[in-house]
Amino acid sequence: MTYCIGLRLNHGLVFMSDTRTSAGVDNFATSKKMFTWSVPGERMITLMTAGNLATTQAVISLLEERSKTLEERDPSILREGTMFQVARLVGATLREVIDETTNEGQLKQDQFSASIIVGGQIKGGKPTVFLVYPQGNFIEITQDTPFFQIGETKYGKPILVRAYDPDMSFADAIKLLLVSFDSTVKSNLSVGLPFDFQVYEADSFAMGTTRRIDENDKIYQAISEGWGDALKDAFQHLPSYKL
Amino acid sequence: MTYCIGLRLNHGLVFMSDTRTSAGVDNFATSKKMFTWSVPGERMITLMTAGNLATTQAVISLLEERSKTLEERDPSILREGTMFQVARLVGATLREVIDETTNEGQLKQDQFSASIIVGGQIKGGKPTVFLVYPQGNFIEITQDTPFFQIGETKYGKPILVRAYDPDMSFADAIKLLLVSFDSTVKSNLSVGLPFDFQVYEADSFAMGTTRRIDENDKIYQAISEGWGDALKDAFQHLPSYKL
Repeated sequence: MTYCIGLRLNHGLVFMSDTRTSAGVDNFATSKKMFTWSVPGERMITLMTAGNLATTQAVISLLEERSKTLEERDPSILREGTMFQVARLVGATLREVIDETTNEGQLKQDQFSASIIVGGQIKGGKPTVFLVYPQGNFIEITQDTPFFQIGETKYGKPILVRAYDPDMSFADAIKLLLVSFDSTVKSNLSVGLPFDFQVYEADSFAMGTTRRIDENDKIYQAISEGWGDALKDAFQHLPSYKL
Repeated sequence: MTYCIGLRLNHGLVFMSDTRTSAGVDNFATSKKMFTWSVPGERMITLMTAGNLATTQAVISLLEERSKTLEERDPSILREGTMFQVARLVGATLREVIDETTNEGQLKQDQFSASIIVGGQIKGGKPTVFLVYPQGNFIEITQDTPFFQIGETKYGKPILVRAYDPDMSFADAIKLLLVSFDSTVKSNLSVGLPFDFQVYEADSFAMGTTRRIDENDKIYQAISEGWGDALKDAFQHLPSYKL
Protein backbone atom coordinates (compact mmCIF):
# COMPACT_ATOMS: atom_id res chain seq x y z
CA MET A 1 0.00 0.00 0.00
CA THR A 2 0.80 3.66 0.14
CA TYR A 3 -0.36 6.81 1.79
CA CYS A 4 -0.66 10.16 -0.02
CA ILE A 5 -2.56 13.33 0.84
CA GLY A 6 -3.29 16.33 -1.36
CA LEU A 7 -4.72 19.24 0.58
CA ARG A 8 -5.95 22.69 -0.40
CA LEU A 9 -5.56 25.75 1.81
CA ASN A 10 -6.85 29.23 1.04
CA HIS A 11 -3.34 30.29 0.10
CA GLY A 12 -2.06 27.23 -1.69
CA LEU A 13 -1.67 23.46 -1.86
CA VAL A 14 0.25 20.86 0.15
CA PHE A 15 1.20 17.37 -1.01
CA MET A 16 2.71 14.53 1.00
CA SER A 17 3.46 10.92 0.09
CA ASP A 18 5.20 7.98 1.67
CA THR A 19 7.75 5.95 -0.28
CA ARG A 20 7.17 2.31 0.62
CA THR A 21 6.33 -0.13 -2.11
CA SER A 22 5.71 -3.74 -1.31
CA ALA A 23 4.66 -6.97 -2.88
CA GLY A 24 4.18 -8.85 0.36
CA VAL A 25 5.97 -8.14 3.62
CA ASP A 26 9.18 -9.85 2.48
CA ASN A 27 9.50 -7.82 -0.68
CA PHE A 28 9.51 -4.11 -0.09
CA ALA A 29 11.53 -1.17 -1.27
CA THR A 30 11.58 2.60 -1.39
CA SER A 31 10.12 4.33 -4.41
CA LYS A 32 9.21 7.92 -5.07
CA LYS A 33 5.50 8.47 -5.55
CA MET A 34 5.48 12.23 -6.09
CA PHE A 35 6.21 13.74 -9.50
CA THR A 36 6.22 17.38 -10.55
CA TRP A 37 6.04 19.17 -13.88
CA SER A 38 6.46 22.90 -13.94
CA VAL A 39 6.94 25.82 -16.31
CA PRO A 40 8.01 28.65 -14.01
CA GLY A 41 5.61 31.57 -14.21
CA GLU A 42 3.06 29.52 -16.14
CA ARG A 43 2.17 26.22 -14.45
CA MET A 44 3.00 23.83 -11.61
CA ILE A 45 1.55 20.32 -11.58
CA THR A 46 2.19 17.68 -8.90
CA LEU A 47 1.02 14.09 -9.17
CA MET A 48 1.04 11.32 -6.54
CA THR A 49 0.31 7.65 -7.15
CA ALA A 50 -1.02 4.68 -5.20
CA GLY A 51 -1.45 1.14 -6.42
CA ASN A 52 0.40 -1.29 -8.66
CA LEU A 53 3.92 0.02 -9.23
CA ALA A 54 4.16 -1.21 -12.82
CA THR A 55 0.94 0.61 -13.62
CA THR A 56 1.91 3.87 -11.94
CA GLN A 57 5.42 3.88 -13.44
CA ALA A 58 3.93 3.25 -16.88
CA VAL A 59 1.54 6.18 -16.42
CA ILE A 60 4.40 8.51 -15.44
CA SER A 61 6.52 7.29 -18.34
CA LEU A 62 3.69 7.86 -20.80
CA LEU A 63 3.06 11.33 -19.42
CA GLU A 64 6.76 12.08 -19.84
CA GLU A 65 6.70 10.57 -23.34
CA ARG A 66 9.62 8.27 -22.57
CA SER A 67 8.72 6.17 -25.58
CA LYS A 68 10.02 9.00 -27.77
CA THR A 69 13.60 10.12 -28.15
CA LEU A 70 14.72 12.97 -25.96
CA GLU A 71 14.51 15.52 -28.79
CA GLU A 72 11.03 14.49 -29.84
CA ARG A 73 9.46 14.74 -26.39
CA ASP A 74 6.89 17.48 -25.82
CA PRO A 75 4.78 16.16 -22.96
CA SER A 76 1.17 17.19 -23.42
CA ILE A 77 0.84 17.63 -19.65
CA LEU A 78 2.89 20.79 -20.26
CA ARG A 79 0.50 21.94 -23.00
CA GLU A 80 -2.96 21.32 -21.56
CA GLY A 81 -4.73 24.63 -20.99
CA THR A 82 -6.44 23.94 -17.64
CA MET A 83 -6.05 21.66 -14.62
CA PHE A 84 -9.32 20.00 -15.64
CA GLN A 85 -7.73 19.04 -18.96
CA VAL A 86 -4.66 17.76 -17.08
CA ALA A 87 -6.92 15.55 -14.96
CA ARG A 88 -8.60 14.24 -18.13
CA LEU A 89 -5.21 13.41 -19.65
CA VAL A 90 -4.05 11.64 -16.48
CA GLY A 91 -7.33 9.72 -16.23
CA ALA A 92 -7.19 8.61 -19.87
CA THR A 93 -3.55 7.53 -19.50
CA LEU A 94 -4.25 5.61 -16.30
CA ARG A 95 -7.21 3.82 -17.84
CA GLU A 96 -5.22 2.96 -20.96
CA VAL A 97 -2.40 1.37 -18.92
CA ILE A 98 -4.80 -0.63 -16.77
CA ASP A 99 -6.79 -1.77 -19.79
CA GLU A 100 -3.61 -3.03 -21.47
CA THR A 101 -2.64 -5.27 -18.55
CA THR A 102 -6.10 -6.38 -17.50
CA ASN A 103 -7.77 -9.31 -19.21
CA GLU A 104 -11.24 -8.84 -20.60
CA GLY A 105 -13.82 -9.48 -17.95
CA GLN A 106 -11.42 -8.83 -15.09
CA LEU A 107 -12.59 -6.13 -12.72
CA LYS A 108 -10.77 -2.83 -12.70
CA GLN A 109 -10.41 -3.14 -8.93
CA ASP A 110 -7.73 -5.63 -9.69
CA GLN A 111 -4.12 -6.26 -8.96
CA PHE A 112 -3.04 -3.85 -11.70
CA SER A 113 -5.21 -1.06 -10.39
CA ALA A 114 -4.00 2.34 -9.21
CA SER A 115 -5.31 5.76 -8.28
CA ILE A 116 -3.76 9.17 -8.58
CA ILE A 117 -3.94 12.58 -6.93
CA VAL A 118 -3.03 15.41 -9.30
CA GLY A 119 -3.03 19.05 -8.31
CA GLY A 120 -1.50 22.39 -9.14
CA GLN A 121 -2.28 25.58 -10.98
CA ILE A 122 -2.13 26.77 -14.59
CA LYS A 123 -2.15 30.47 -15.44
CA GLY A 124 -5.72 31.74 -15.76
CA GLY A 125 -7.07 29.15 -13.30
CA LYS A 126 -7.12 28.62 -9.55
CA PRO A 127 -5.05 26.11 -7.59
CA THR A 128 -6.96 22.83 -7.39
CA VAL A 129 -6.59 19.11 -6.77
CA PHE A 130 -8.20 16.11 -8.48
CA LEU A 131 -8.55 12.49 -7.40
CA VAL A 132 -8.33 10.20 -10.44
CA TYR A 133 -9.91 6.73 -10.27
CA PRO A 134 -8.68 3.58 -12.06
CA GLN A 135 -11.69 3.92 -14.39
CA GLY A 136 -10.22 7.18 -15.63
CA ASN A 137 -12.90 9.46 -14.18
CA PHE A 138 -12.11 11.91 -11.41
CA ILE A 139 -13.45 14.26 -8.76
CA GLU A 140 -12.28 17.75 -7.84
CA ILE A 141 -11.56 19.09 -4.39
CA THR A 142 -14.23 21.38 -2.90
CA GLN A 143 -14.58 23.57 0.18
CA ASP A 144 -16.53 20.76 1.81
CA THR A 145 -13.91 18.15 0.94
CA PRO A 146 -10.68 20.11 1.21
CA PHE A 147 -8.33 17.12 0.98
CA PHE A 148 -7.94 13.83 -0.88
CA GLN A 149 -6.23 10.71 0.42
CA ILE A 150 -5.19 7.62 -1.52
CA GLY A 151 -3.79 4.29 -0.33
CA GLU A 152 -4.07 3.38 3.34
CA THR A 153 -6.42 6.26 4.17
CA LYS A 154 -8.35 5.28 7.26
CA TYR A 155 -5.90 5.48 10.17
CA GLY A 156 -4.89 9.05 9.40
CA LYS A 157 -8.32 10.45 8.56
CA PRO A 158 -9.70 11.33 12.03
CA ILE A 159 -7.00 13.92 12.76
CA LEU A 160 -7.47 15.51 9.31
CA VAL A 161 -11.22 15.77 9.88
CA ARG A 162 -10.67 17.38 13.28
CA ALA A 163 -7.74 19.72 12.84
CA TYR A 164 -7.84 20.94 9.24
CA ASP A 165 -8.39 24.66 8.84
CA PRO A 166 -8.29 26.33 5.40
CA ASP A 167 -6.44 29.33 6.86
CA MET A 168 -3.66 27.33 8.54
CA SER A 169 -0.05 28.13 7.59
CA PHE A 170 2.00 25.80 5.40
CA ALA A 171 4.08 24.91 8.47
CA ASP A 172 0.95 23.91 10.40
CA ALA A 173 -0.37 21.97 7.41
CA ILE A 174 2.89 19.99 7.16
CA LYS A 175 2.64 19.31 10.88
CA LEU A 176 -0.96 18.12 10.44
CA LEU A 177 0.02 15.81 7.60
CA LEU A 178 2.94 14.45 9.60
CA VAL A 179 0.62 13.59 12.49
CA SER A 180 -1.72 11.86 10.03
CA PHE A 181 1.19 9.96 8.44
CA ASP A 182 2.65 9.06 11.83
CA SER A 183 -0.69 7.59 12.98
CA THR A 184 -0.75 5.50 9.81
CA VAL A 185 2.85 4.31 10.09
CA LYS A 186 2.26 3.27 13.70
CA SER A 187 -0.75 1.15 12.66
CA ASN A 188 0.19 -0.30 9.27
CA LEU A 189 3.41 -1.89 8.05
CA SER A 190 2.70 -1.14 4.39
CA VAL A 191 3.24 2.60 4.83
CA GLY A 192 6.77 3.71 5.63
CA LEU A 193 9.30 6.51 5.89
CA PRO A 194 10.80 8.52 4.30
CA PHE A 195 7.99 10.93 3.40
CA ASP A 196 8.15 13.45 0.57
CA PHE A 197 6.33 16.74 0.85
CA GLN A 198 5.85 19.75 -1.34
CA VAL A 199 4.04 23.03 -0.83
CA TYR A 200 2.69 25.29 -3.54
CA GLU A 201 1.86 28.92 -2.90
CA ALA A 202 -1.15 30.13 -4.89
CA ASP A 203 -0.29 32.20 -7.97
CA SER A 204 3.46 31.56 -7.60
CA PHE A 205 3.52 29.19 -10.62
CA ALA A 206 6.69 27.66 -9.22
CA MET A 207 7.57 24.69 -7.01
CA GLY A 208 7.53 25.65 -3.35
CA THR A 209 9.51 24.00 -0.59
CA THR A 210 10.13 20.33 -1.38
CA ARG A 211 11.74 18.06 1.16
CA ARG A 212 12.24 14.43 2.12
CA ILE A 213 11.72 13.50 5.77
CA ASP A 214 13.41 10.37 7.08
CA GLU A 215 13.35 8.66 10.46
CA ASN A 216 16.34 10.69 11.68
CA ASP A 217 14.54 13.97 11.13
CA LYS A 218 14.50 15.78 14.49
CA ILE A 219 11.23 17.65 13.95
CA TYR A 220 9.45 14.49 12.82
CA GLN A 221 10.76 12.63 15.86
CA ALA A 222 9.58 15.46 18.13
CA ILE A 223 6.14 15.45 16.48
CA SER A 224 5.86 11.68 16.66
CA GLU A 225 6.83 11.47 20.32
CA GLY A 226 5.17 14.73 21.32
CA TRP A 227 1.91 13.67 19.74
CA GLY A 228 1.72 10.51 21.82
CA ASP A 229 2.31 12.49 25.01
CA ALA A 230 -0.06 15.25 23.93
CA LEU A 231 -2.80 12.70 23.23
CA LYS A 232 -2.35 11.16 26.67
CA ASP A 233 -2.51 14.63 28.26
CA ALA A 234 -5.58 15.58 26.26
CA PHE A 235 -7.16 12.26 27.17
CA GLN A 236 -6.63 12.85 30.91
CA HIS A 237 -8.57 16.09 30.74
CA LEU A 238 -11.72 14.60 29.22
CA PRO A 239 -14.63 13.78 31.53
CA SER A 240 -15.15 10.16 32.65
CA TYR A 241 -18.13 7.98 33.44
CA LYS A 242 -18.74 7.10 37.05
CA LEU A 243 -19.18 3.33 36.95
CA MET B 1 -20.14 -2.63 8.93
CA THR B 2 -19.75 -2.55 12.66
CA TYR B 3 -17.23 -1.59 15.26
CA CYS B 4 -16.52 -3.67 18.38
CA ILE B 5 -13.59 -3.68 20.79
CA GLY B 6 -12.71 -6.23 23.46
CA LEU B 7 -9.93 -5.05 25.74
CA ARG B 8 -8.09 -6.64 28.65
CA LEU B 9 -6.83 -4.67 31.63
CA ASN B 10 -4.85 -6.06 34.53
CA HIS B 11 -7.99 -5.98 36.66
CA GLY B 12 -10.64 -7.05 34.18
CA LEU B 13 -12.19 -6.79 30.74
CA VAL B 14 -14.07 -4.09 28.83
CA PHE B 15 -16.33 -4.62 25.82
CA MET B 16 -17.92 -2.02 23.57
CA SER B 17 -19.96 -2.37 20.39
CA ASP B 18 -21.93 -0.09 18.11
CA THR B 19 -25.45 -1.01 17.01
CA ARG B 20 -25.72 -0.04 13.35
CA THR B 21 -26.56 -2.71 10.83
CA SER B 22 -26.83 -1.84 7.19
CA ALA B 23 -27.35 -3.41 3.81
CA GLY B 24 -26.48 -0.32 1.83
CA VAL B 25 -26.85 3.26 3.00
CA ASP B 26 -30.61 3.28 2.40
CA ASN B 27 -31.29 0.22 4.50
CA PHE B 28 -29.99 0.50 8.00
CA ALA B 29 -31.30 -0.26 11.44
CA THR B 30 -30.25 -0.64 15.05
CA SER B 31 -29.36 -4.09 16.30
CA LYS B 32 -27.66 -5.29 19.45
CA LYS B 33 -24.30 -6.91 18.81
CA MET B 34 -23.34 -7.74 22.38
CA PHE B 35 -24.59 -10.88 24.12
CA THR B 36 -23.82 -12.16 27.59
CA TRP B 37 -24.16 -15.52 29.30
CA SER B 38 -23.42 -15.75 32.98
CA VAL B 39 -23.72 -18.08 35.93
CA PRO B 40 -23.10 -15.82 38.92
CA GLY B 41 -20.13 -16.97 40.95
CA GLU B 42 -19.04 -19.40 38.24
CA ARG B 43 -18.73 -17.80 34.78
CA MET B 44 -19.30 -14.64 32.72
CA ILE B 45 -19.05 -14.79 28.93
CA THR B 46 -19.60 -11.84 26.58
CA LEU B 47 -19.71 -12.14 22.81
CA MET B 48 -19.74 -9.41 20.13
CA THR B 49 -20.40 -9.93 16.43
CA ALA B 50 -19.46 -8.23 13.16
CA GLY B 51 -20.54 -9.24 9.68
CA ASN B 52 -23.63 -10.62 8.00
CA LEU B 53 -26.58 -10.21 10.37
CA ALA B 54 -28.30 -13.44 9.32
CA THR B 55 -25.08 -15.32 10.06
CA THR B 56 -24.45 -13.71 13.44
CA GLN B 57 -28.07 -14.06 14.56
CA ALA B 58 -28.00 -17.72 13.57
CA VAL B 59 -24.83 -18.25 15.60
CA ILE B 60 -26.38 -16.64 18.68
CA SER B 61 -29.58 -18.66 18.23
CA LEU B 62 -27.62 -21.90 17.95
CA LEU B 63 -25.56 -21.06 21.01
CA GLU B 64 -28.80 -20.40 22.89
CA GLU B 65 -30.29 -23.60 21.52
CA ARG B 66 -33.36 -21.81 20.24
CA SER B 67 -34.14 -24.79 18.03
CA LYS B 68 -35.12 -26.68 21.17
CA THR B 69 -38.15 -26.07 23.35
CA LEU B 70 -37.59 -23.88 26.36
CA GLU B 71 -37.53 -26.81 28.79
CA GLU B 72 -35.02 -28.79 26.75
CA ARG B 73 -32.46 -25.99 26.40
CA ASP B 74 -29.17 -26.46 28.20
CA PRO B 75 -26.75 -24.27 26.21
CA SER B 76 -23.35 -25.90 26.07
CA ILE B 77 -21.73 -22.44 26.31
CA LEU B 78 -22.83 -22.66 29.96
CA ARG B 79 -21.19 -26.09 30.36
CA GLU B 80 -17.79 -25.71 28.65
CA GLY B 81 -15.02 -25.96 31.24
CA THR B 82 -12.68 -23.24 29.99
CA MET B 83 -12.74 -20.08 27.90
CA PHE B 84 -10.63 -21.91 25.32
CA GLN B 85 -13.40 -24.49 24.96
CA VAL B 86 -15.95 -21.69 24.67
CA ALA B 87 -13.92 -20.17 21.82
CA ARG B 88 -13.81 -23.60 20.11
CA LEU B 89 -17.57 -23.93 20.42
CA VAL B 90 -18.16 -20.43 19.04
CA GLY B 91 -15.71 -21.03 16.18
CA ALA B 92 -17.31 -24.35 15.24
CA THR B 93 -20.79 -22.82 15.35
CA LEU B 94 -19.75 -19.82 13.24
CA ARG B 95 -18.13 -22.04 10.64
CA GLU B 96 -21.14 -24.35 10.53
CA VAL B 97 -23.52 -21.43 9.86
CA ILE B 98 -21.29 -19.95 7.16
CA ASP B 99 -20.78 -23.34 5.50
CA GLU B 100 -24.55 -23.86 5.34
CA THR B 101 -25.18 -20.60 3.46
CA THR B 102 -22.06 -20.57 1.30
CA ASN B 103 -21.99 -22.47 -1.96
CA GLU B 104 -19.15 -24.87 -2.62
CA GLY B 105 -16.20 -23.06 -4.08
CA GLN B 106 -17.24 -19.68 -2.74
CA LEU B 107 -14.65 -18.05 -0.57
CA LYS B 108 -15.30 -17.76 3.13
CA GLN B 109 -14.53 -14.03 2.90
CA ASP B 110 -17.93 -13.74 1.38
CA GLN B 111 -21.15 -11.88 1.88
CA PHE B 112 -22.25 -14.34 4.54
CA SER B 113 -19.05 -13.98 6.51
CA ALA B 114 -18.75 -12.78 10.08
CA SER B 115 -16.23 -12.56 12.90
CA ILE B 116 -16.70 -12.65 16.63
CA ILE B 117 -15.00 -11.41 19.78
CA VAL B 118 -15.70 -13.62 22.80
CA GLY B 119 -14.29 -12.97 26.25
CA GLY B 120 -14.93 -13.57 29.89
CA GLN B 121 -13.84 -15.80 32.72
CA ILE B 122 -14.74 -19.27 33.97
CA LYS B 123 -13.88 -20.38 37.50
CA GLY B 124 -10.37 -21.88 37.57
CA GLY B 125 -9.16 -19.74 34.66
CA LYS B 126 -8.11 -16.16 34.08
CA PRO B 127 -10.12 -13.45 32.29
CA THR B 128 -9.34 -13.60 28.59
CA VAL B 129 -10.60 -12.58 25.15
CA PHE B 130 -10.60 -14.46 21.83
CA LEU B 131 -11.02 -13.24 18.26
CA VAL B 132 -12.86 -15.90 16.22
CA TYR B 133 -12.44 -15.91 12.43
CA PRO B 134 -15.05 -17.00 9.86
CA GLN B 135 -12.97 -20.14 9.28
CA GLY B 136 -13.69 -21.15 12.87
CA ASN B 137 -10.14 -20.75 14.16
CA PHE B 138 -9.25 -18.07 16.68
CA ILE B 139 -6.51 -16.16 18.45
CA GLU B 140 -6.21 -15.21 22.11
CA ILE B 141 -5.38 -11.82 23.54
CA THR B 142 -1.82 -11.41 24.86
CA GLN B 143 0.12 -8.78 26.76
CA ASP B 144 1.54 -7.59 23.46
CA THR B 145 -1.87 -7.41 21.82
CA PRO B 146 -4.11 -6.34 24.68
CA PHE B 147 -7.20 -5.59 22.58
CA PHE B 148 -9.14 -6.98 19.62
CA GLN B 149 -11.21 -4.97 17.16
CA ILE B 150 -13.69 -6.25 14.58
CA GLY B 151 -15.56 -4.43 11.83
CA GLU B 152 -14.45 -0.95 10.81
CA THR B 153 -11.22 -1.12 12.81
CA LYS B 154 -8.79 1.33 11.23
CA TYR B 155 -10.03 4.82 12.11
CA GLY B 156 -10.10 4.10 15.82
CA LYS B 157 -6.86 2.15 16.12
CA PRO B 158 -4.26 4.95 16.46
CA ILE B 159 -5.68 6.25 19.75
CA LEU B 160 -5.86 2.71 21.18
CA VAL B 161 -2.22 2.09 20.25
CA ARG B 162 -1.17 5.36 21.88
CA ALA B 163 -3.24 5.65 25.03
CA TYR B 164 -3.91 2.09 26.21
CA ASP B 165 -2.41 1.26 29.58
CA PRO B 166 -3.07 -2.12 31.25
CA ASP B 167 -3.39 -0.42 34.65
CA MET B 168 -5.95 2.17 33.59
CA SER B 169 -9.26 2.30 35.50
CA PHE B 170 -12.48 1.03 33.97
CA ALA B 171 -13.68 4.64 33.73
CA ASP B 172 -10.56 5.60 31.75
CA ALA B 173 -10.89 2.52 29.55
CA ILE B 174 -14.50 3.44 28.70
CA LYS B 175 -13.31 6.95 27.90
CA LEU B 176 -10.58 5.55 25.65
CA LEU B 177 -13.05 3.32 23.82
CA LEU B 178 -15.47 6.23 23.40
CA VAL B 179 -12.72 8.33 21.80
CA SER B 180 -11.91 5.43 19.48
CA PHE B 181 -15.61 4.95 18.61
CA ASP B 182 -16.12 8.68 18.15
CA SER B 183 -13.20 8.89 15.69
CA THR B 184 -14.78 6.03 13.75
CA VAL B 185 -18.29 7.48 13.72
CA LYS B 186 -16.93 10.80 12.49
CA SER B 187 -15.19 9.08 9.55
CA ASN B 188 -17.52 6.27 8.55
CA LEU B 189 -21.30 6.19 8.06
CA SER B 190 -21.56 2.45 8.61
CA VAL B 191 -20.79 2.73 12.32
CA GLY B 192 -23.39 4.47 14.47
CA LEU B 193 -24.75 5.25 17.90
CA PRO B 194 -25.98 4.04 20.31
CA PHE B 195 -23.01 2.15 21.74
CA ASP B 196 -23.27 -0.70 24.25
CA PHE B 197 -20.56 -1.25 26.79
CA GLN B 198 -19.91 -3.72 29.56
CA VAL B 199 -17.12 -4.05 32.09
CA TYR B 200 -16.08 -7.21 33.86
CA GLU B 201 -14.04 -7.16 37.05
CA ALA B 202 -11.57 -10.04 37.27
CA ASP B 203 -12.69 -12.87 39.57
CA SER B 204 -16.12 -11.33 40.12
CA PHE B 205 -17.85 -13.99 37.97
CA ALA B 206 -20.73 -11.57 37.47
CA MET B 207 -21.74 -8.98 34.90
CA GLY B 208 -20.25 -5.59 35.71
CA THR B 209 -21.69 -2.23 34.72
CA THR B 210 -23.58 -2.51 31.43
CA ARG B 211 -24.93 0.59 29.73
CA ARG B 212 -26.18 1.94 26.42
CA ILE B 213 -24.85 5.32 25.30
CA ASP B 214 -26.92 7.34 22.84
CA GLU B 215 -26.32 10.67 21.14
CA ASN B 216 -28.01 12.58 23.97
CA ASP B 217 -25.57 11.22 26.55
CA LYS B 218 -23.94 14.26 28.19
CA ILE B 219 -20.60 12.59 28.94
CA TYR B 220 -20.30 11.24 25.42
CA GLN B 221 -21.09 14.69 24.00
CA ALA B 222 -18.47 16.25 26.28
CA ILE B 223 -15.89 13.65 25.23
CA SER B 224 -16.71 14.05 21.55
CA GLU B 225 -16.50 17.84 21.59
CA GLY B 226 -13.72 18.01 24.16
CA TRP B 227 -11.58 15.60 22.17
CA GLY B 228 -11.73 17.78 19.07
CA ASP B 229 -10.66 20.83 21.08
CA ALA B 230 -8.03 18.86 22.98
CA LEU B 231 -6.55 17.58 19.71
CA LYS B 232 -6.35 21.11 18.34
CA ASP B 233 -4.67 22.29 21.54
CA ALA B 234 -2.22 19.39 21.53
CA PHE B 235 -1.52 20.05 17.87
CA GLN B 236 -0.67 23.71 18.53
CA HIS B 237 2.02 22.68 21.01
CA LEU B 238 3.92 20.42 18.62
CA PRO B 239 7.01 21.81 16.88
CA SER B 240 6.73 23.01 13.27
CA TYR B 241 8.99 23.04 10.24
CA LYS B 242 10.38 26.34 9.16
CA LEU B 243 9.61 26.43 5.44
